[in-house]
Amino acid sequence: MTTERLDLARYADEITGQARRAAAELSLMTSGAKDAALGAAARAIRDSAAALKAENEKDLVAGRTAGLSTALLDRLELTDRRIEDMAAGLETVAALRDPVGEVITGWRLPNGLRIQKVRVPIGVILMIYESRPNVTADAAALTLKSGNACILRGGKEAVHSNLAIARILQKAIAEEGLPAAAINIVETTDRALVGNLLGMTGRIDLVIPRGGKALIARVASESTIPVLKHYEGICHTYVDEGADLEMAEQICLNAKVQRPGVCNAMETMLVHEKEAAAFLPRICRSMAAAGVELRGDEAARTICPDMKEAAEEDWSTEYLDLILSIKVVKSVEEAIGHIGTYGSGHSDAIVSRSMESIEKFTEGVDSSAVFVNASTRFNDGGQFGFGAEIGISTDKLHARGPVALEELTSYKYLVYGSGQLRE
Amino acid sequence: MTTERLDLARYADEITGQARRAAAELSLMTSGAKDAALGAAARAIRDSAAALKAENEKDLVAGRTAGLSTALLDRLELTDRRIEDMAAGLETVAALRDPVGEVITGWRLPNGLRIQKVRVPIGVILMIYESRPNVTADAAALTLKSGNACILRGGKEAVHSNLAIARILQKAIAEEGLPAAAINIVETTDRALVGNLLGMTGRIDLVIPRGGKALIARVASESTIPVLKHYEGICHTYVDEGADLEMAEQICLNAKVQRPGVCNAMETMLVHEKEAAAFLPRICRSMAAAGVELRGDEAARTICPDMKEAAEEDWSTEYLDLILSIKVVKSVEEAIGHIGTYGSGHSDAIVSRSMESIEKFTEGVDSSAVFVNASTRFNDGGQFGFGAEIGISTDKLHARGPVALEELTSYKYLVYGSGQLRE
Repeated sequence: MTTERLDLARYADEITGQARRAAAELSLMTSGAKDAALGAAARAIRDSAAALKAENEKDLVAGRTAGLSTALLDRLELTDRRIEDMAAGLETVAALRDPVGEVITGWRLPNGLRIQKVRVPIGVILMIYESRPNVTADAAALTLKSGNACILRGGKEAVHSNLAIARILQKAIAEEGLPAAAINIVETTDRALVGNLLGMTGRIDLVIPRGGKALIARVASESTIPVLKHYEGICHTYVDEGADLEMAEQICLNAKVQRPGVCNAMETMLVHEKEAAAFLPRICRSMAAAGVELRGDEAARTICPDMKEAAEEDWSTEYLDLILSIKVVKSVEEAIGHIGTYGSGHSDAIVSRSMESIEKFTEGVDSSAVFVNASTRFNDGGQFGFGAEIGISTDKLHARGPVALEELTSYKYLVYGSGQLRE
Repeated sequence: MTTERLDLARYADEITGQARRAAAELSLMTSGAKDAALGAAARAIRDSAAALKAENEKDLVAGRTAGLSTALLDRLELTDRRIEDMAAGLETVAALRDPVGEVITGWRLPNGLRIQKVRVPIGVILMIYESRPNVTADAAALTLKSGNACILRGGKEAVHSNLAIARILQKAIAEEGLPAAAINIVETTDRALVGNLLGMTGRIDLVIPRGGKALIARVASESTIPVLKHYEGICHTYVDEGADLEMAEQICLNAKVQRPGVCNAMETMLVHEKEAAAFLPRICRSMAAAGVELRGDEAARTICPDMKEAAEEDWSTEYLDLILSIKVVKSVEEAIGHIGTYGSGHSDAIVSRSMESIEKFTEGVDSSAVFVNASTRFNDGGQFGFGAEIGISTDKLHARGPVALEELTSYKYLVYGSGQLRE
């Protein structure tokens, strides 16, 4: 091993070692202590706005020099508004109910043993994320509140901002009596260290990559630690035979254009053939008016000849843009089949008045959230009432759909007896 | 690629393809249909006892030729009693409540959206297991009941028995209208195929290795698919200051000798120093009478000089045998610290009358089950009232402790609206 690699191994050992010790301490902290620390962290962020902007400026200068796109530079920038949002976010998490200690269920056995299934923290969570520096504060708040120590590894383009935020948080929580190592930030931008960390089973309990598909795929393929993935959202809305077409139009528009760049936005619209002639002209007009480029199958283009022809790859593309693919289907079964083949199991909706169609769709579509007469845009921890979220899981193990405080916990069984023996 | 490897890749593609199609069908089956199929499978197993024993004989002959140990040959053998137990096991699972479709929780949002969190199958589960052929029937029953398709890969020493059992089950469920490919068995004993399967993310949703530590470690290190692990049980019983020593003696004896070869048996006993002089002589006598070899630390050996000296590695050894390590501790905190350092997070117990000690122990010990005044041997799906289990998870993600029907499911959110749009 070269000295450099040895140094990385030593660094990984140190950061995970201190995180594990902090996690053990943190798991015994009261909600009151954790909430006070989050409150202090919020105040510290507000009080440090000027220093944060100075550090952020270093990233912005480096980003401009490196030729980052305007969009990326915008995501990178910490304005007064964004700093205030970060502080407010810490307070929001402090105000949420502590999931740790919740008795999920409990029962008594015939032999008198009393069993309680109790929520506990997971342990040490490694977060790997991309450009937005506010993720540093968001992730730290959610993991801390759920009793977990975190190791944060942000994008290298935001390194000064991320380090500055993490240092402020560490100092603030330490002053409130929490272990500073409840929040750890990776100081090196050496990508090799991530490889070290992803192999540290037993030291790190869960990895959450937050960013584009490529980042998530790379982390998942490299990690021997469980990874909670939020892959892409190829989301559908199916307009059923007999649907309220006014409602269908509003839902489809909302799902496509209200915020096209996010994972729960609609990418493909499926329309029952009996409604196509009535529905397609009106929805195409409103979509076009909203600036949406339309790509249809042959049947759709027969009715609306202006739209482009959809290619096979359109059905499996997450546009994250003002583009919509449209397909005419013969039945709810065909819609379900299309979603099963091309969808990503994220968010899919049916607009229908038929109990039979709705039953078939909700049973047959295997997605993290299935919507009936509502926009796919509601698949979100905030909208679901979870208060905050760290992402939307497309996994089926551990957590599916919005990942919030509960999803950042495990459980253990407490069994109370009076001398019971197994026969 | 050689022809052989190409053939394996094609085989892996076929078996996972048919499993996925069957899983989609199975997820829509009613409980009645699944239970009828399990009942038919039980009858078919009973009716095929002679044929099963004939196939099993082939494995036994091969095993004797290969020089398998008496213990392994015993585990391999299908007696009339074991065949009846297998059939009865299928009926037991049929009689359990179907977890699929359960509404785990539900609520209404301020905007009128109604959310239901509903239990759904996971999909395709790969089971990799060792010698006992009854696992073939057990695993097939639990996965089928929970709506999952399974791919079974048993040990090569039981290949004839496993294939015979799987064929009977497939035929029986197909006659009841279920897809035969809900149950798949790997026909080749070529270990390379396991490598192929463990890389098939997207085709297989979960891997459950069932067997020794080496098997589980190998599967976990090779798999890109989530693995549900049940690693070793280095289980402790801590006898607190002021404990009822008669109760402590019975609990420790039960935890050690009632069935020493299993994961929830005690391996280390921790005794508070204030009770050591009174407790150690009596427990050592009863343990010795039960044939248990004792290995103590210096303080324990001062009181009971007959016991061997425990080496450092004793504290982290899962004996699975009539051996017990013993340590004298100064406090409940020291006991908790020892368990945190050397334990495996499986099952740990405290015998105590002190509310304070019990609170500290149940909070501070991070194991899948923590027992108060009861034997660690109760950490078991059957004992917990789950009806059946596929193992005891030492993971903290997805499932922890006994893995039964509920733990073989995921969930999805169903969201019912009346035209709600996101603002």
